[in-house]
Parts: sequence; C-alpha cells; structure tokens
Amino acid sequence: MTNIIKVVVAGPRGRMGKEAVKLVDETPNFELVAVLDRKNNGTNLNELEGFTGSSAPIYTNIEECFQQVEADVLIDLTIPETGYIHTKTALLHGVRPVVGTTGFTKEQIQELTKLAEDKGLGCIIAPNFAIGAILMMKFSQMAAKYFQNVEIIELHHDQKLDAPSGTAVKTAEMISESRQSIKQGHENEKETLPGARGADLEGMRIHSVRLPGLVAHQQVLFGADGQLLTIQHDSYNRASFMSGVKVSVETIMNLETLVYGLEHILD
Amino acid sequence: MTNIIKVVVAGPRGRMGKEAVKLVDETPNFELVAVLDRKNNGTNLNELEGFTGSSAPIYTNIEECFQQVEADVLIDLTIPETGYIHTKTALLHGVRPVVGTTGFTKEQIQELTKLAEDKGLGCIIAPNFAIGAILMMKFSQMAAKYFQNVEIIELHHDQKLDAPSGTAVKTAEMISESRQSIKQGHENEKETLPGARGADLEGMRIHSVRLPGLVAHQQVLFGADGQLLTIQHDSYNRASFMSGVKVSVETIMNLETLVYGLEHILD
Amino acid sequence: MTNIIKVVVAGPRGRMGKEAVKLVDETPNFELVAVLDRKNNGTNLNELEGFTGSSAPIYTNIEECFQQVEADVLIDLTIPETGYIHTKTALLHGVRPVVGTTGFTKEQIQELTKLAEDKGLGCIIAPNFAIGAILMMKFSQMAAKYFQNVEIIELHHDQKLDAPSGTAVKTAEMISESRQSIKQGHENEKETLPGARGADLEGMRIHSVRLPGLVAHQQVLFGADGQLLTIQHDSYNRASFMSGVKVSVETIMNLETLVYGLEHILD
Amino acid sequence: MTNIIKVVVAGPRGRMGKEAVKLVDETPNFELVAVLDRKNNGTNLNELEGFTGSSAPIYTNIEECFQQVEADVLIDLTIPETGYIHTKTALLHGVRPVVGTTGFTKEQIQELTKLAEDKGLGCIIAPNFAIGAILMMKFSQMAAKYFQNVEIIELHHDQKLDAPSGTAVKTAEMISESRQSIKQGHENEKETLPGARGADLEGMRIHSVRLPGLVAHQQVLFGADGQLLTIQHDSYNRASFMSGVKVSVETIMNLETLVYGLEHILD
Repeated sequence: MTNIIKVVVAGPRGRMGKEAVKLVDETPNFELVAVLDRKNNGTNLNELEGFTGSSAPIYTNIEECFQQVEADVLIDLTIPETGYIHTKTALLHGVRPVVGTTGFTKEQIQELTKLAEDKGLGCIIAPNFAIGAILMMKFSQMAAKYFQNVEIIELHHDQKLDAPSGTAVKTAEMISESRQSIKQGHENEKETLPGARGADLEGMRIHSVRLPGLVAHQQVLFGADGQLLTIQHDSYNRASFMSGVKVSVETIMNLETLVYGLEHILD
Repeated sequence: MTNIIKVVVAGPRGRMGKEAVKLVDETPNFELVAVLDRKNNGTNLNELEGFTGSSAPIYTNIEECFQQVEADVLIDLTIPETGYIHTKTALLHGVRPVVGTTGFTKEQIQELTKLAEDKGLGCIIAPNFAIGAILMMKFSQMAAKYFQNVEIIELHHDQKLDAPSGTAVKTAEMISESRQSIKQGHENEKETLPGARGADLEGMRIHSVRLPGLVAHQQVLFGADGQLLTIQHDSYNRASFMSGVKVSVETIMNLETLVYGLEHILD
Repeated sequence: MTNIIKVVVAGPRGRMGKEAVKLVDETPNFELVAVLDRKNNGTNLNELEGFTGSSAPIYTNIEECFQQVEADVLIDLTIPETGYIHTKTALLHGVRPVVGTTGFTKEQIQELTKLAEDKGLGCIIAPNFAIGAILMMKFSQMAAKYFQNVEIIELHHDQKLDAPSGTAVKTAEMISESRQSIKQGHENEKETLPGARGADLEGMRIHSVRLPGLVAHQQVLFGADGQLLTIQHDSYNRASFMSGVKVSVETIMNLETLVYGLEHILD
Repeated sequence: MTNIIKVVVAGPRGRMGKEAVKLVDETPNFELVAVLDRKNNGTNLNELEGFTGSSAPIYTNIEECFQQVEADVLIDLTIPETGYIHTKTALLHGVRPVVGTTGFTKEQIQELTKLAEDKGLGCIIAPNFAIGAILMMKFSQMAAKYFQNVEIIELHHDQKLDAPSGTAVKTAEMISESRQSIKQGHENEKETLPGARGADLEGMRIHSVRLPGLVAHQQVLFGADGQLLTIQHDSYNRASFMSGVKVSVETIMNLETLVYGLEHILD
C-alpha cells in the first residue's frame, strides 16, 4: 500500500503556487492538507476565485498552521525572504520542506543544513525544478568524459537580456568538471565576421539565439569522428517545473539531510 | 516520347567527374557519348580502372571530340582555367555547357553570356549544384518577407578555417534583399561572455559551430509571436551536387541564354 | 505617408479575439474603431475586465455598428454561423472582411465570392492564419518538384485525438500536386513491428508523435543523394495566428475579390 | 608517465581494420606491434598498398605472432569464426582481446568468460562500438525513470530493409527496464490513416523514416508537462566506431574479466 503524503503549499495564488496546488490535487498519493497565504485566513481554498478543487484550509500564520494541521511536506515557491522563514519553521515542526529558490545566502543554507541534520529531516532546496533541464546537464557531464569536443546552442525569446543563459553557463561548468580541456576547432580558424564562433568558456563554444516566439531551449552537441550526440531540452511553460517538485516530494520522505540541487536526488 | 540527351563529361577521373559519369549512366534519357580527359586519348572509358559501365570514347582534344561526336550538353566539373576554354569551345560547336565553378572572372562571364546569346544556346554556370542548399536560400528569402527576425546557425567539421561559411553569408545577403531591416533582440541585451550572440550581418545573427564528425549543415530560423519556422539543409557527401547537375542538363535544352546560379532555373 | 486602416473586431472577449484586439492596438497604422460583442452594447472596450488599452465603442448590432462607425476592415474570429452573417453584412456595407474559419459551406463561399466581386471588395477567408505553417506547406510543394522522396513527422500534445493531423494531410496533398509519384523506400522493406513505417498517403510516409508537453509541430523531410532538406514549423501558442491576420488586413485593401486560403496572398 | 599499450590488429585490410590501424597509429600511447592478415606473411604493413604509416610486421599465424611479439591487446574486427579463435588464442597467450562482433554463440561467450576469469585477463566483446549510440541508449534508460512518455524516431537511408532498426528496438527494451509501463497517448486516439502512430513496443511508439541521403540517425523524445527532452545520435560513417575501440583498449588493461557490451564499461 502506498502511503499518503500530507502536503502544505505556500503561496497558492502565485503562478508557481497555482501549479503546485494542481499537482497535489492530481497526484493520487498526495493530499493537500492546508495552504499558507498572505491573506484569506480562516477560509477554504475552494472559496477563492479560480480554485474549484481542494477545500484545504487557508492559514496566514505558519506556526498556527503546523500546530493545527498534521503535515509531512511543505512546498514553498514564494520569495526568498518568506521561503527562508518557512523552511526553518517547517523543520522545527518536523515538516520536510521542498523549496524552489536561488535566493538563499550561503549562511542561510549552512544554518538550514545543520537544522535538518539535527532533526534528521529531509530538506530539498533547488534553483531549478525542470527535471529535463537537470538531466540534460547531468547527461552532458557524463558524455563529456568520452567526447571532448562540445558546443552549446541556447535559444530564448528576444526579451531575454543576458547572453549566454544561466543554464548554458551552468552546463558548461558542469561539463568542464569531467572534460579533459582541449583547444577546439582548427588551430588556424578565423572569424571573417567577429562573434561567429560564439562565446568561449574553457574552450567550449556557446551560441545564444534570441527570437520572438521562442520560449527556453538548449542543445548540447558532442562531435567525434563520424558521429554527433545531441542532448536537447525544450521548456514550453512553467508546468515543466512540476515534475521536479513531484519527485522531490516523493524522495524527501526517505532523506534525513538537506540536499541542494535536484541533480543530487536523480540517479 | 522523351528525347535522349547526348552528354559529354569533362574530367571523368576527378571526384566530381566520377559522380557525373555515374549520373549520366544511371539516368534513362541521358546518354554518355564521350569524355574529355587529360590523358588516355583513343581508349574507352570502361578500360580505365574503376569504370565498369559506359564504353564512351576518351578524347584529350576538345575540338576533335566535338568534330567526331554529336553532343547536346557538356558537363564540366574541372578547374576554372580548363573550364573556361571548354565552355567557350562547346558554345562555338553548338553544345550547351553545364559548368560548376566559382572561378570565372566577370569579364569571362560577360564574354560567355554574349557568346551564348549570339548562338542562341543555353549555358548554365553554377557555384553550387546542391539543390537542397539552393532551395534553403530561396525559401529563406521568401520567408523573410513575412518574418523579419532571423538567425542562422551553420555547422561544419572542425577542419574548416573560415567562420561564418560562404553559404551562411550568401543566405544572409539574399535574405537582406527581401527583409525589412530591423534591430533584432532586446534593445538592452548584453553579452556576459563576448561573442555569445554571434556575428552580425545587417542585424541578422550568424552562429558557426565546428565539431569533428559534422559534414556541412545549416539552419535558418525565423521567429515570430508564438511560432518558429526552420529551414535546414544537411549535406552528407558530394553526391548531393548531382541532383543539381541533373536538373541543369534537363533545363538547358530549353534555354537560349547564359544563366549564372542554379536559383534562377528553380521555380 | 502610410494610410491608417480602420478596423472592427468581432468577438473581442474570445481567446482569438483578444489577440486580435491586441494586434490592432499594437500596430501603428491600424486603428480599432469598434468591436462587435454579444453583450455590453453601449459601453467602451476599456471598461471590460482585462482590457486596458483601446476605448473603442462596443456594439451588439452589426448594422448599427456599420451605420455609425466608418470602417475599412472587419476581423471576424467568431463561430461559423455568426461569421457568415458578419461577412455578408460587412460586404454589403463596403467593409472588407478577414475571417478565420473552416466552417463555411461551399454554397456560402460561392455566395460570398459573388457578393465580393459585385461590390469590388477584397474578402479573405482562411482556415489557418499561422503564416509559418502556410509557408511550410508552400515550400514543401515547391521542394517536391526536385525531391521526390519525402516523409512528414508531425508532433502534438497527447490530448489530440486524430492521427495524422489535418495539417500533415493537407501538406501531403499539396505536395502530391507537384510531386511525381513514386514508390518510396526499399522495394523489399518489411515492418518487423507493424506501423513502424507510418501512414501511407500516395507513397509519402506520415508519422504522428503524441507526447505531453508538446504543442503543435511538423517537420517535412526531403531526402536525395547525399543531402536532406527539412522544413519545420513549431507553433507554441495561438499568438502564432496573428501574423497572418496582420498580413491579411494589409493585403485586403488592394484586393477586389474573395480569396480562400492564406497561401494565395503570400508570394 | 603514461604506459605505452602494445596493440596487434587483426584484419588490417578490411574496412574496419583499416580504421583500427589508423586509430592505433594516431594515438600517442598506443603502439602497433604487429598485424594479423590472411596473407602477406613476413612482410611489413607499410609495404601494402594504402598503408604509409606503421612498419609493423605481418603474421598469418596467430601462434607465431604471439610467440615472437610482446603484445598487451588484440583488436579483432574480423568475422565471427576467425574472431572466436583469435580471442581464445589471445587469452591463452596473456593478451587482452577487444572484439567487435554480434556473431558469438552463448556457449562461446560462456567459454571465453571462464577463460578470461581463469587467466585474470580483461576481454571486451561489443556488438556496437559507437560510443554516442551507447550513451544515447544509456541516457534514455536513465531518463525513463522520470519521464514515462517516450517515442523513438529512427531515420535511415532507403536501402535498409527492416523497420524498426535494431538500435531502436534495443533502446526501447533498455527503456522498458527502467520505465513504469503506461498506455501513452489519448485513450480515445484513432488513426485516420493506418500506421500513423507508428509501431508499439510496450506502449512506446517507434517511427521509422527511410530516405535517400540519410545515413543512420535516432532521436529519443521524452515529453512531460511543459517540456521535452530529446537525446539524438547521428552516425555519418564508420569512423564513429573507433572512439569505442579506443576507450575499450584503455579500459581493458584494468579489467580482469570478460565484459559483453560497451555500456558496461562507460560510467
């Protein structure tokens, strides 16, 4: 028999929070036992506009919530300031936090790591919950052991300001840990138009395409004699993050420490 | 009834010439009536190593060849110096030339244009016979009337010296003829690693990937609200040129002037 | 000087209608002079929830609308029944209709064709306004003159019921008009698992991929000796239709007859 | 200091053997100490037509070869009958075999496994040495733990007889070991043209494209809410096998048992 995992979602009216509520509602062995909202204390979720499913109670005070409701996991997709307090409070009440943020300081992560260890509770903090993107990076790191020649093409909508993308840089950094560094391309190659060969990160070339219509896409190309291996991830909308949240909730029940980064719980 | 087209191939032992001989042999309404070779005069083609098909006679002297053999078309895939003489001589003998070269001077082309016109004979000179590449460029030019935002990714083996490729530059130039020029990307976009956004040709971005294993590939990406149109050509080997030679031989019988560039005979 | 085109949008609260209002608002030489809505007569568009831009007047009666407001073009993205009446009424009032529907009967189209001709007014009826998809089909038809071997891969979300998609079938039909029919594949090829080689439409193979996450995508692959030409369209959301509506509004001012299908106004 | 690995290549004049000789010649820490050929005994390799590099001695008798030459590794890319005898003889002489074949019987593999274990010698037998293809299969198996919805598109030249390809079937089988079996697609989906949805292997769909010009290509597509992960391998020519042979030669020096399948030595 599968055990039911009792879940609290913080920030249910936010764009990510809405997806999280939907995820918990639709997963058979997950149960939404409460939500944490900045307002609407004392009402039920299905009284809010746009929520037709769960009638979970709404709390504005996290202490009160965890005193009155028995919960296993807290899903927090709010802002870093709130998320930090939520994570700490959850651990103190024996509730395992799944937190999506890039905003915690090193000191906060150290403190939470110690707290989780003291309590013997799992805690997952992830900058990126899109499993496909995490696997793309992980596979790229593995492939780079056998294919030294790699180039990255990342493609985003034309409202993105920075090039290359954070994911492309992270991918190249992960690859550089397993790749024997070499000078790629012909030793006498030359650009007749500057920039044609893209950005250089430890010998790897990164190309950033920006076009209206695109969402968020990345290809990692590994070339060797007579063959090409390509690992590609296309993200079409934010629902792509929910598969990672789901795996995290399922995995966290068997963890007794803090894990930073989804790649460490995928095998 | 389909008329048989009588063909002479110049340079049958070269890499392209071999493919041309094979093409003529395998096309039902083409007939190989002679070959022009620097040596082996007076023998037959099937006496040479590696030629098991046609027994067409071998000539080293082009005048002698056209005096003794009735021919409709000359396929010339030799070097520019020889090709120029062959083209001129063929026209003087009433034979239509299909010539693959980028090496003729403007003066030579003008002279041959006039000669073809005087004789009322078709003559096709093409820098690139890969129909797929020609169509990619043609379609890109057409698409650019409706999609102003375009980026080009070209991918080649890592022994290629220049970036971007000649085909990518040619494509961008053809696009710029039909595209209303705009500044692409976000007006405040910035490269955190120089070169990430590629080369800039009239506002279009070109990205050059170089990896071992690759042959010759190009993608032209057109983005607009909610959609992406991609035109891609992959060239795996030199046999890709023969479809263009075939179309040229078939078309030239109905031409009475010189045409430069295969794009002008495709519709 | 660019002339301003005065536009009426029918169905402004529908999903497509909203995009159309946004398009007209954002295009410099388009002006939204009124909207036709089933309710809210007598109020202004910016009084409705979700509309912060134009203050165009709302009409429920189309006759009244065209009597009081001077308009050049009607954009109608409603249901066929309403659309038919709107189209006819617009033409009778000297307003050019741009209509997105697959639902008109042959008789209705004949009647509207005659009416447009009598009035000397342009009228565009299009089953599909995604220019990228239209160009993909048009280019495929052109390429098929030179590449007889073609396969189509269409990829959609897994809630789609029919396979293959309407666009794939339409593409194959358009290709068959320009392609010399041949038997593709090896003459002795066999499926060790039934269905592997896809559906057969006049010798062309069509493959339908259905996966969660996907939206609407199609690749048309043309293979020949040593090369591959691929024409691909990715549709990420319904905004992809608006570029076709925009071109239609711009083109219709110079038309004096009815045109069915966007492919006939793209060149 | 890197130790030099002394290599014997069997079948140096075959297509794969030639690539193997080239590989050993070009790898700094590999040394070609002899070749085994069916003829030319007593001459040197650089006396044969087409071999301008190594002057390694040629043997027709494997016993004699291993008595006179000190070798670490035998690379055997001949036919199964010869390969079996070579593998056994090499092990008996303390030489580690790297063998590319699908043709050994179960009994032969069991016998060689025991022999390798008794001698404490590494032995690698692999049906496929293209590392990119092996990694594609391995990554697909890993990804299937998180993405249940998968479809495979394999694309080959149109002279291939069977559909789907052996690699596609092997990939699906490997995926089915890690994937929770589900019914993919809409429960009411229907094919309006039979075969559109491809072949069904345990709920996974496989699509086989056959076009002239293609070589050997495969895409594995994993879809989930809002995202797509694609793992693709393109094989352009047989040089793609040599990277796998190289890794095998490097790895085998640290093995003391027989390994069947390259996937077991990649990590």
